[in-house]
Amino acid sequence: MGLFITFEGIEGCGKTTQVDLAAERLRRRSLPVLVTREPGGTDLGTAVRALLLNRGERPPDAVAELFLFAAARAQHCREVIGPALAAGTIVLCDRFADATVAYQAYGRGLPLETVRFVNELSTGPLRPDRTFLFDLEPKAGLSRALTRIAHRGGGPAEDRFEGEDLAFHEAVRRGYLEEARRDPGRFRVIPAEGTVEEVAAAVGREMEDLLRERGYVL
Amino acid sequence: MGLFITFEGIEGCGKTTQVDLAAERLRRRSLPVLVTREPGGTDLGTAVRALLLNRGERPPDAVAELFLFAAARAQHCREVIGPALAAGTIVLCDRFADATVAYQAYGRGLPLETVRFVNELSTGPLRPDRTFLFDLEPKAGLSRALTRIAHRGGGPAEDRFEGEDLAFHEAVRRGYLEEARRDPGRFRVIPAEGTVEEVAAAVGREMEDLLRERGYVL
Repeated sequence: MGLFITFEGIEGCGKTTQVDLAAERLRRRSLPVLVTREPGGTDLGTAVRALLLNRGERPPDAVAELFLFAAARAQHCREVIGPALAAGTIVLCDRFADATVAYQAYGRGLPLETVRFVNELSTGPLRPDRTFLFDLEPKAGLSRALTRIAHRGGGPAEDRFEGEDLAFHEAVRRGYLEEARRDPGRFRVIPAEGTVEEVAAAVGREMEDLLRERGYVL
Repeated sequence: MGLFITFEGIEGCGKTTQVDLAAERLRRRSLPVLVTREPGGTDLGTAVRALLLNRGERPPDAVAELFLFAAARAQHCREVIGPALAAGTIVLCDRFADATVAYQAYGRGLPLETVRFVNELSTGPLRPDRTFLFDLEPKAGLSRALTRIAHRGGGPAEDRFEGEDLAFHEAVRRGYLEEARRDPGRFRVIPAEGTVEEVAAAVGREMEDLLRERGYVL
């Protein structure tokens, strides 16, 4: 079995950049790596992503949203992540089930037990070996995310979740931190205010620990 | 509150034709009617329908499929059916939550309790006032469905569910009949081997009973 590592955090926390840097580092050591993301990672997931993130006249209801994420994740686990792990690959995933707890339960206010139940149905037996939570003040994260949107020209493709108000993102952050407190064996909270290089160095140290723990390095 | 009536049955049972005929009959009496269907009925539902029914290289996993139907239904209930009922409309829906029990639990083999739980999350408090189950031998239904596909030229748009084998459709039929036995107050099983006119006459009698029961006719 490979290793399943998820990267979590609010908008603008820098996790996508860190996924890529971590993958590069592993590839330089000739370790087999797969980078993927949610929602996405499969044809079905990509189609669902477009449905979810588009700012539409009629945004999906919170329950519909929960089920769309769950559908994309079910397909992703069975079609991509599970087979890659079985083949011994290190899978780095940009968001996973914790995001659904943070956004749909803490952010949107759906019952925590409902979201956990749906998550368990969608992931089946798959659990991350480690989860890096990039923690940042929502104000700082949103200003980064807005800069990114401005750079790519904005427009209708900008993420619906980035348009939510600050209180929503603060609830999401609290949710992530609460989940990390509940499962300290799996989570590593990484402060994300620093430069890309500083954060990457922290991730690197954590990755080394994990690889050593699992017998990848002597 | 209006009336919520669902039309259920296996492929080729004739329910779509019967929905239209029932709607016509109600409109001739100047009753406010809305005809809708699942998956569909909203922009989100239509997009999900395309994902679900397309014969693809990688058909959705059974759990992903369950969640996609649930997402479409959640949006449909909250955006369309609930508001229409609140406005006093008679809503005729071509397939609803019973279809998910019949196809995903009895057909695909997902645990019945899981499917019921997901259905309850997706429908919220909405329950049909009456459900017409058009019952037919799967062999007869599939031959009708295949004739229809041939007439519209077949091609990639043909429904994925119509391509399942006979044993699958027999399990679906058993599931529908079992659900009808569990809830005889809501279900009316209508034999669907007859001509369109014969079946429409049976639906008409049941509709009259329901309208009388609910005070629509004296």
